[in-house]
Amino acid sequence: MKTHVVYRPKLASRREFPESTLLVYDQDLLKISKSFKRWAGTFSAQLPLSAGEKTKSLERFPEIIKKVLKKTEIFSSREMTILVVGGGTLTDLGGFLASVLKRGVRLILVPTTWLAAMDSAHGGKNGLNFSGYKNQIGTFYFPERIEIIKEILFCQPPTRAREAYGELVKMSLISKSKLFSDLQKHHKIDNKKIFSSLPLAIEAKYKVVQQDPFESKKLRHVLNLGHTFAHAMEKCFKISHGDAVFYGVAFSLVWSRWKKVISEREFDVIIEATFWRQSFRSESYARLLSAPVSEVKKSLFQDKKRSSRGYLLEPFVQARGQVVLKNITTDEFLAEFQRQKKLLQKVTYASKN
Amino acid sequence: MKTHVVYRPKLASRREFPESTLLVYDQDLLKISKSFKRWAGTFSAQLPLSAGEKTKSLERFPEIIKKVLKKTEIFSSREMTILVVGGGTLTDLGGFLASVLKRGVRLILVPTTWLAAMDSAHGGKNGLNFSGYKNQIGTFYFPERIEIIKEILFCQPPTRAREAYGELVKMSLISKSKLFSDLQKHHKIDNKKIFSSLPLAIEAKYKVVQQDPFESKKLRHVLNLGHTFAHAMEKCFKISHGDAVFYGVAFSLVWSRWKKVISEREFDVIIEATFWRQSFRSESYARLLSAPVSEVKKSLFQDKKRSSRGYLLEPFVQARGQVVLKNITTDEFLAEFQRQKKLLQKVTYASKN
Repeated sequence: MKTHVVYRPKLASRREFPESTLLVYDQDLLKISKSFKRWAGTFSAQLPLSAGEKTKSLERFPEIIKKVLKKTEIFSSREMTILVVGGGTLTDLGGFLASVLKRGVRLILVPTTWLAAMDSAHGGKNGLNFSGYKNQIGTFYFPERIEIIKEILFCQPPTRAREAYGELVKMSLISKSKLFSDLQKHHKIDNKKIFSSLPLAIEAKYKVVQQDPFESKKLRHVLNLGHTFAHAMEKCFKISHGDAVFYGVAFSLVWSRWKKVISEREFDVIIEATFWRQSFRSESYARLLSAPVSEVKKSLFQDKKRSSRGYLLEPFVQARGQVVLKNITTDEFLAEFQRQKKLLQKVTYASKN
Repeated sequence: MKTHVVYRPKLASRREFPESTLLVYDQDLLKISKSFKRWAGTFSAQLPLSAGEKTKSLERFPEIIKKVLKKTEIFSSREMTILVVGGGTLTDLGGFLASVLKRGVRLILVPTTWLAAMDSAHGGKNGLNFSGYKNQIGTFYFPERIEIIKEILFCQPPTRAREAYGELVKMSLISKSKLFSDLQKHHKIDNKKIFSSLPLAIEAKYKVVQQDPFESKKLRHVLNLGHTFAHAMEKCFKISHGDAVFYGVAFSLVWSRWKKVISEREFDVIIEATFWRQSFRSESYARLLSAPVSEVKKSLFQDKKRSSRGYLLEPFVQARGQVVLKNITTDEFLAEFQRQKKLLQKVTYASKN
C-alpha cells in the first residue's frame, strides 16, 4: 500500500505515463476544458465514459471490459496502466477495473472533483453497484499515483466547494493535524481555499488508512464520521454527499455532547470554528430532521449489515483529532434523531420569539 | 497470505464452518456422492452450479452475483464465508466471487479434482474467462482454509489419477522436496498414490508461492514449467490439462538438455524416475508434435502477452528442484518444436527397424 500523491498546476505531459496506458475519462471534460481535450489527444488508447452511479454498475461492467480488452489488445499485461481522469464514480470504476484486469494492472488516478481529490480517490477502496445497491462488488486496490491537478479541479462550479466543506470538516476532526486550526482561520469557502486545504486533508486520511489499510481492524471506520446520518439523508432528499456529510458531522457532534463523549467546551470550540451554529438554525437542517422515520430506519438497516453482530459502529467525537467508535442499536440512533428534531424545534421557536 | 491446509478422511461437520456460510458446489456431486448430498443438506444457504469453463465467465457473473446476494441477504458482510466444493473452474469462480463480494469475504475451498487439490486451489490465483479468452479478469486472493477430503477426491474415475500425474511430476522438479524420490519408488499411479503425494506436492507449491505471492518478482513463473507447450496442445487437441502438462514437462526437459541447461546424467535420472522414456515413444507425443505450427504460433503469442517485452519467460530444468527462467522468442520455441518433431521421427524410425 504505497500511493504517491503528486500536486501539479497543469496536467503532466504524455511521457510521464507508461507507453501501455489506457486513458479512461469523464467525457464531459472534453466540453469543460480545452486543455484537457488537447492533452487527452496525446493518448492513443482511450475510453470516454459518462460519470455517475449507473456507469459504475456490475450490469454495465462486461460491456466496459469488452471495450477495455479491445483497446489494450496490443499492450503487454505486465506493463499495462489504467489512467482514470474523473470524479468518484469513475475512480471507483477504474480502480475496480485495474484491480481485476489480468489479476491487477497499474493504476493512476486524476480526480476531477473535490470529494474525489480529498477523499474517495485515496485509501484503496473501490466499488460497483448492483441492482441499485451501492458498492456490492469491489476490492481494496491502491493506485500507484494520484495526481492532484489545480487546473482541472478549478473547472468545477463554485457550489462544489461548499459541498466539499463537509468532508473537509470531517477530516479536520478524525486525526490530529493542522487542518482544524487552518479551517478556524478562514471563513470563506471557495475553490482556492479547498485546494489549499487538500494536502492536510489527504494527509489526515492516509494517517487513518495506514493503520488499517484493509479495514480488518475496524480502525478505518472513524472515516465514516457523520455518514450514517448522511446516507439516510441521501436516500430521503436530493442532497449532495458533501452537504449530507456536513450535517451528518453536526448530528454526530450534538449526539457526542448529549452522550457526554465530548466536553461542552470542546464542543463549543469546534462549532465556533466551523461556524455550524448558524447552520443549525437554518431551514436545511430542520428539513433533514423532518425525514420520515421509516425511511431513516431502512437506511440504518442497510448500514448495520456492513457492521457486525447487528450493531451500528458509530463514530463519536471526543475532541479535535479524537474520534471513538461505539456499538449503537438502530433504536438508539432513531431516538437521537427524534431528540434532535425536538431540540431544533425548540431552538427555532425560541429564536423566532 | 496465510492458507491453512487441512486433510480429512470425510467432510467436516456443519459446525466447522461459520454460521453465515454460503455453500457453492458442483451440482454433479449430488449424483456422485450420497454423503456429499447429506452433508450439503446441512447448509441453509447454497448455490449449486455446473462445473466448466462456461460457468467461470464474466458474462455469467452478474447472474451468479444476483443469486449470491439474494441468498446471503440476511448475513452480516463481516462474517460472510464462501465455501466452494468443486474442481478448478468452481474454485476459480468462487475465489473471485469471495474476493470482490463486499470488497472481500472469507473463503474456504474444498477441491474435488486432483488438479484443483494439488495445484489450482492453492496459491491465491483465480480468474474469469471473457469472450472465450481465459482468466482475463481475476484477483490474487488467498483462501483462509483449504480442505483436502479423501472421500470426496476418491469419487473421481481412475483415469483422472493418470492425468494428475503430469502436475505431480512438475511439482517434483520445481522445488527441492522428497516428492521426487517418492515418485522414483512408485511405478503405479492410482488414486491412492496421488492422494498420498498431495502433502508433498502442496508443500512444494507453497514454497514457490511464498517467495512471490503476487507474481511481482516473476519467481512464481517456475510453476509454469511445461505450460507453454501444454497451452498450445490444449488448443490443438482434445487433451486434458494434466496430460498436456505431462508432455509439456517432457518437452521442456528435452529442450533443457539440448540447451545444456541440464547435464546428461541428471536428465537420465529424471527421465528414468518418471518413466517418460516410454511415453516419448508412444503415439501420443508424436501426435502432439504433429500439431500445425501456425496454431502453436498463435498460442505462443497469447502466452507472450502475459510476459514482458515480447519474450516468453520459459522455465528450464537445471536439476531436480532447480528450475531457471529464460527469455525466449517465439521463433526459438517453434524451432525447438520442429527439432523435437524430427528427433522423434528418427527415434520412432530407429525403434521400428
